[in-house]
Amino acid sequence: MPEADRRIVETCFSPALFEADRHTDSIVVIIDILRATSSICTAIENGAAGIIPVGDVEEAWEYKKRGYLLAAERDGYVLDFADFGNSPFNFTRDRVQGKTIAYSTTNGTYIINLALHAARVAIGSFLNISALISWLVSENRDIVLFCAGWKNRFNLEDTICAGAMSERLLGNSRYATICDSTLAAIDLWSKAKPDLRAYIEKAAQRTRLRDKGLDDCIDFCLTEDFTAKIPVMKNGILVDNNL
Amino acid sequence: MPEADRRIVETCFSPALFEADRHTDSIVVIIDILRATSSICTAIENGAAGIIPVGDVEEAWEYKKRGYLLAAERDGYVLDFADFGNSPFNFTRDRVQGKTIAYSTTNGTYIINLALHAARVAIGSFLNISALISWLVSENRDIVLFCAGWKNRFNLEDTICAGAMSERLLGNSRYATICDSTLAAIDLWSKAKPDLRAYIEKAAQRTRLRDKGLDDCIDFCLTEDFTAKIPVMKNGILVDNNL
Repeated sequence: MPEADRRIVETCFSPALFEADRHTDSIVVIIDILRATSSICTAIENGAAGIIPVGDVEEAWEYKKRGYLLAAERDGYVLDFADFGNSPFNFTRDRVQGKTIAYSTTNGTYIINLALHAARVAIGSFLNISALISWLVSENRDIVLFCAGWKNRFNLEDTICAGAMSERLLGNSRYATICDSTLAAIDLWSKAKPDLRAYIEKAAQRTRLRDKGLDDCIDFCLTEDFTAKIPVMKNGILVDNNL
Repeated sequence: MPEADRRIVETCFSPALFEADRHTDSIVVIIDILRATSSICTAIENGAAGIIPVGDVEEAWEYKKRGYLLAAERDGYVLDFADFGNSPFNFTRDRVQGKTIAYSTTNGTYIINLALHAARVAIGSFLNISALISWLVSENRDIVLFCAGWKNRFNLEDTICAGAMSERLLGNSRYATICDSTLAAIDLWSKAKPDLRAYIEKAAQRTRLRDKGLDDCIDFCLTEDFTAKIPVMKNGILVDNNL
């Protein structure tokens, strides 16, 4: 592969490390698997017309007043004026089909809005990993795997998902990386993949969700290829890429 | 070990992720093994009276004018008014013994100054790892392993050194972590340690140093226990902890 045709894969571990100006020609893949990006993939699979990522609580309330279905949480807790919270199990077909949902979470929706100057913004999780990788390759751009982390901190679960994606991308000779974060993510994925569910037991977010009784969806969120949908940002709304 | 007697180990991958206000009662260990903290350990081993970490180039020039020995680089290149640069091989006994050295580097000296509100600031590298761990345990405080990274980005070499330190600390029942960064560092160290020198070949900084012909010191910087000295910050100067 001639150097000029190579596409670069980078990984960003935290919104505090995201360099928006460097990525205006790249596709940014948002990864917040416990639980925002898993929920968004589920909502689109279940027929949601679109998801509006909402940064702050006041803006969420405005959407609610305007009649939108509202999914919203902070630190795992459902906001009291929201219709439901941040579990993928909330986004059932009977609730979401044909609806546009305003959605606000602690980390995931915040970073979506940080990435808006990228060439494309897509939503990634284990739930749509194979379809996502195929689509990324077809788009033929540099890629940033943007892990939401937890309140600016590094987290394990998004990193291993980025590692799983990187391993597949770098298996294609068109892609290369010189990014230590990507190399680390791949190595952590190699530690995790023989028993992903056991590995995730040690993640801090696993403990946070268990402490709040919100861990019922973790096994689901670690499931590869539940859907072939790729939520992408179009005109400020996340929609099915095929629409 | 009762919970209240437990000491916490945390790892910070980048200055952009450092939360100074949270760590005022902790010991912060500065890790920038290629090459600042390896050089500081070498300088103290070779009898330097002290190292003054200098943040910016103008301040470095002021120290030079006042007659200090000056070690200074940016992006690997020696500043033209400096006496020498940032390789540990520069800090020979005949040059440094009894001297106080002003020292300014791209990443390492910058983060030392970010950590000044911690209870203690110490300099860590593979070169002093065993002595450092013994001293940390004797100090009986929470610990932050602060990786310099590269211009705010994550790097592999400092992370695996933090992982090596964490593995030893968490082998002592007094220490615990709930920090995903520490868990990741330990897992990356477990990947690296069977052949540390081969592992570091893939690190971006390895490539940067090689491209500039500055990689002669890497093997040395990966050597455990070259010295039993622990450089610590006292009154704005890094000195031998035993003095």
